[in-house]
Amino acid sequence: MKFLEPAALIETLNWRYATKQFDPARKIPAAVWSALEDALILTPSSYGLQPWHFFVVTDAKLKAALRPHSWDQPQVTDCSHHVVFAARRDIDAAFVEKYLARISEIRGVGVESLGFYRDMMTSDILNGPRSKWVQEWAARQVYIALGNFMTAAALLGVDTCPMEGMDPAKYDEILGLPAKGFNTIVACPTGYRAEGDKYAGLPKVRFPKEDLLEVL
Amino acid sequence: MKFLEPAALIETLNWRYATKQFDPARKIPAAVWSALEDALILTPSSYGLQPWHFFVVTDAKLKAALRPHSWDQPQVTDCSHHVVFAARRDIDAAFVEKYLARISEIRGVGVESLGFYRDMMTSDILNGPRSKWVQEWAARQVYIALGNFMTAAALLGVDTCPMEGMDPAKYDEILGLPAKGFNTIVACPTGYRAEGDKYAGLPKVRFPKEDLLEVL
Repeated sequence: MKFLEPAALIETLNWRYATKQFDPARKIPAAVWSALEDALILTPSSYGLQPWHFFVVTDAKLKAALRPHSWDQPQVTDCSHHVVFAARRDIDAAFVEKYLARISEIRGVGVESLGFYRDMMTSDILNGPRSKWVQEWAARQVYIALGNFMTAAALLGVDTCPMEGMDPAKYDEILGLPAKGFNTIVACPTGYRAEGDKYAGLPKVRFPKEDLLEVL
Repeated sequence: MKFLEPAALIETLNWRYATKQFDPARKIPAAVWSALEDALILTPSSYGLQPWHFFVVTDAKLKAALRPHSWDQPQVTDCSHHVVFAARRDIDAAFVEKYLARISEIRGVGVESLGFYRDMMTSDILNGPRSKWVQEWAARQVYIALGNFMTAAALLGVDTCPMEGMDPAKYDEILGLPAKGFNTIVACPTGYRAEGDKYAGLPKVRFPKEDLLEVL
């Protein structure tokens, strides 16, 4: 395996910024987008349960329909791929069984050998403390995907703009997500910055490190 | 800027796994850890508000005290740096002002020019729809940091194990976080995999791409 030099990683993370102006003429090439799809799929999640779905809006009419419900932000229509991060609605015993069957399939182990794992998930997410707020638990997982995705995109030279300024209920309605078993959580226009975006050159605002991090 | 080839990114994301066994003898070198601190600090957040704090536990006694409240998982004591991701408790007008003052300081603009930005945050997070669940909003932001951190670590060849299997209230108590203005959200032992960790070689379990992603 070849890893990055620490300085190269930090250079990339400093290059990243919440893009205000996308270049509407630049589309993400298929090979690059395919890797970003893989990056989304490879996101870690609690128990590996993947309680999410990623809806990638590239259709111009659909983007235009979503924009008024995104505080009219032009990134929605100007970006190459408008990614909608959604959480799974039904996190139940059937979903856990589906996941166990998938483990069995991929790792070639019998489902009967996974009883301990089933019990762990059941006593936590299905019937235990987290079952009281399992939808919020799923939403948090979705944010892992968002964090991973923005960093992955930057590493490939692709720009993003994380977007909470949108109406999840309207997104659900327009994209028909509840019928598919999902709810919109957050969005992220993705593409390439316009040359003139003045935000690209502004120094990043972060609190001093000592206000944000402490070694114990 | 030099970016990664798509295949190199995916190779790294496949190399990453939730590490079960850390090598207790291997510590993260200072230069590598320093970059990971920077990666945490550079995490994007909604409005750029950074409603978080990262507590990095390296002290052996403190790790040992946390382990029984982490489902007794050995990663807590065997890892090099046990990172505790915490959310800010007071997300109020004073915090927004502190942030505006920081923007002013870093970008050399007068606070009086930031009134529109203050109004946006106030009417959303302080008094608007998100104010009803602002602590959960902050927790979601923390998960962006977790997602970014795990990916950043993997790029530097550093292993992580995201850990929801722990008792946030006990962590708060042991680390004294509420008095510092924070609450524990999630943890992430970080270090280097032990040579014998059999989980490192297992194929990754993910649902088929068509179950997780749809292009619209």
